[in-house]
Amino acid sequence: MPEFAKRMETMKKSADVIRTLFGSMNDPDLISFGGGAPAKEALPIDTVREIINDIMRKETRGVEALQYGGVKGLEDLRKVIVDELLGPKGVKANVENIIIINGGLEAMNLLCQIFIEPGDVILVESPTFVQSVEIFDMFQAKCVSVDMDDDGMNTEELEMKIKKYNPKMVYVIPTFQNPTGRTLSLERRKKIALMGSEYDVIILEDDPYRDIRYSGEEILPIKAFDESGHVVLANSFSKIFSPGSRLGYILANDEIIEKLFDAKTATNSHTSMLPQIVCAEFFKRGYYPEHHKMICDLYRERRDVMMTCIDEFLPEGTKKVFPDGGLFTWVELPDYINTTDLLSESISNSEVKVAFVAGEGFFAEGNGKGSNCMRISFGSVTPEKIKIGMAKLGKLIESKIK
Amino acid sequence: MPEFAKRMETMKKSADVIRTLFGSMNDPDLISFGGGAPAKEALPIDTVREIINDIMRKETRGVEALQYGGVKGLEDLRKVIVDELLGPKGVKANVENIIIINGGLEAMNLLCQIFIEPGDVILVESPTFVQSVEIFDMFQAKCVSVDMDDDGMNTEELEMKIKKYNPKMVYVIPTFQNPTGRTLSLERRKKIALMGSEYDVIILEDDPYRDIRYSGEEILPIKAFDESGHVVLANSFSKIFSPGSRLGYILANDEIIEKLFDAKTATNSHTSMLPQIVCAEFFKRGYYPEHHKMICDLYRERRDVMMTCIDEFLPEGTKKVFPDGGLFTWVELPDYINTTDLLSESISNSEVKVAFVAGEGFFAEGNGKGSNCMRISFGSVTPEKIKIGMAKLGKLIESKIK
Repeated sequence: MPEFAKRMETMKKSADVIRTLFGSMNDPDLISFGGGAPAKEALPIDTVREIINDIMRKETRGVEALQYGGVKGLEDLRKVIVDELLGPKGVKANVENIIIINGGLEAMNLLCQIFIEPGDVILVESPTFVQSVEIFDMFQAKCVSVDMDDDGMNTEELEMKIKKYNPKMVYVIPTFQNPTGRTLSLERRKKIALMGSEYDVIILEDDPYRDIRYSGEEILPIKAFDESGHVVLANSFSKIFSPGSRLGYILANDEIIEKLFDAKTATNSHTSMLPQIVCAEFFKRGYYPEHHKMICDLYRERRDVMMTCIDEFLPEGTKKVFPDGGLFTWVELPDYINTTDLLSESISNSEVKVAFVAGEGFFAEGNGKGSNCMRISFGSVTPEKIKIGMAKLGKLIESKIK
Repeated sequence: MPEFAKRMETMKKSADVIRTLFGSMNDPDLISFGGGAPAKEALPIDTVREIINDIMRKETRGVEALQYGGVKGLEDLRKVIVDELLGPKGVKANVENIIIINGGLEAMNLLCQIFIEPGDVILVESPTFVQSVEIFDMFQAKCVSVDMDDDGMNTEELEMKIKKYNPKMVYVIPTFQNPTGRTLSLERRKKIALMGSEYDVIILEDDPYRDIRYSGEEILPIKAFDESGHVVLANSFSKIFSPGSRLGYILANDEIIEKLFDAKTATNSHTSMLPQIVCAEFFKRGYYPEHHKMICDLYRERRDVMMTCIDEFLPEGTKKVFPDGGLFTWVELPDYINTTDLLSESISNSEVKVAFVAGEGFFAEGNGKGSNCMRISFGSVTPEKIKIGMAKLGKLIESKIK
């Protein structure tokens, strides 16, 4: 067989991790705090049925749903994004600067296609989203980690590393970050936006959780402070509408968006039409505000239950992040507990059967960092199961305490 | 702004051509033989509405449609492909060797991701599908053309060029080829399959038109003669179900399909679920045979009208391909007529307003080859409009005759 391209060598490990995560979602006996999927109660099934039933009765809409569409994506949906999702968050945008993509993750792939040469440096948060790093690796970028604290990425270290590594891109998940649930402070957002133009580096702001804030104060996106066009905003409909629809979007300046249209054309022509139409109608027909309130109430309750359970069931000395939104928290156990080993046991032990994601995999720098940490998703687990699962997990951890 | 990656330099021209094609589809006054879209009468709008209305009443199916899915794609749909689309065409396949992708074109992107290093050679037909070449260019492959005749790619020249260029991949559209409508002969299919293993080269068989055959004898895919796993079969639901759904698939051996799962994970995680479910149900509920007959009857009539119109309205010395299926034909005008100039005039002249695709763009080798050729799509134009459009186009061409 002909040799595979070098870019594929990096993929093996992370792809396995992700497939295990996706796979473990389907074991009905397992209580999974592993996957980052939304709650099934948060999926607007009936509304989607009603919308489709209505639009597909009109021939022109039916044809629109099934025929080829434009590379930029449905204009109606781009308008919804500008008017209902970006405008209220302090981001002024033109529909022509938005491209609809096949899920939020495609943003990272397309941005790499247009910017990354093998060896280019991308600065990432430590820890950061595994699947994005996997994409950066596939494009043979060199990921360099920047430390975080409770206010998100450390901007002093970021500036130092920008000077040292001359990166092509800074990748940041500013709000209810994956995996930590942390939120970048307003002051740091302003600083990072400025660094984009000052050092001529792309700030890739990946913000799929920002729209599910259920406590605390709204903080404007980094993009709101971008004056030079160096900030590229990627977002997703996965958490506020439906992940299986694979809908996301990118907002970028004229020069970058033109290249993104080229790259999208050469990836898959355009995003599937029916999901775009249904999603646009979901907003245009006014279903979103009530739906949004419903999912925020749902996730707030689960967050609160999870916070209580962590305090109640995990050992003394455990640190946790209190997220004001999103789907997960980050837990740091006493440092002699290895969460990778713990996970193997907690999945396979029939008295436990609880999944989470071990911390190590989220650190691009490797070196065993985060080996006592775990990402705990509460979004897709009912309060009752959160209590049962955390009690079991706590008991297992208790048995490891020295 | 930071520099764009080198791979983006190649894109400008071809992306423009494609966008013009897509764009011109929307002018209501224009009779367009340009785009390769299916007829709107061939889109199963009512059936899709019925299916969705039914499945979304069941909570588990509704959740399946809106929640994250697996990277390989819906198992139901992969079964449909194996049992209903590949089996009857002489291709034995396992559902585990199939991946559902976001439209047929994504196959070329994913195959390049896993195989192509900058500078690798890909042999392509002369002429070939512009948009695939655009993808090969983006991956900085060197495309080398192999001549065709009425039986498709010339296999003697192919073998000679395989020896000369040591290519990574041979890209071939064997059935009702885009842009020519030609079909590769059975004998050549067998030879090409053998060359895959003999010279250790990937044969990328892109076969989106094969399922709309409306005359002549069925010919087995190249993949049916593959014993070593060097043939990778890519296909699409765009022409037999709906292009806007962006559904396609790849069949490959174990080693290659594993890498494709990795590359798909790092591109957009998985293909949109609702279109996959609807498409699978479309087949499982038995709608396909009747639909298939309807679209074949529709396209056969249009093909026949187009063939008559070419003979009637285009000048003596014009050569045409008589396609036994698919959506277009290839016309060679007297060689002093430049079809790129003709197209500018025929689109802008208010007496004409007829679009087609000028031949030159389909030749990866450039050099003005095909400058007197054009791709004429008849699939999406009614017989009445075919007659009107071809009469007008013929009159314009007549005025150019020396």
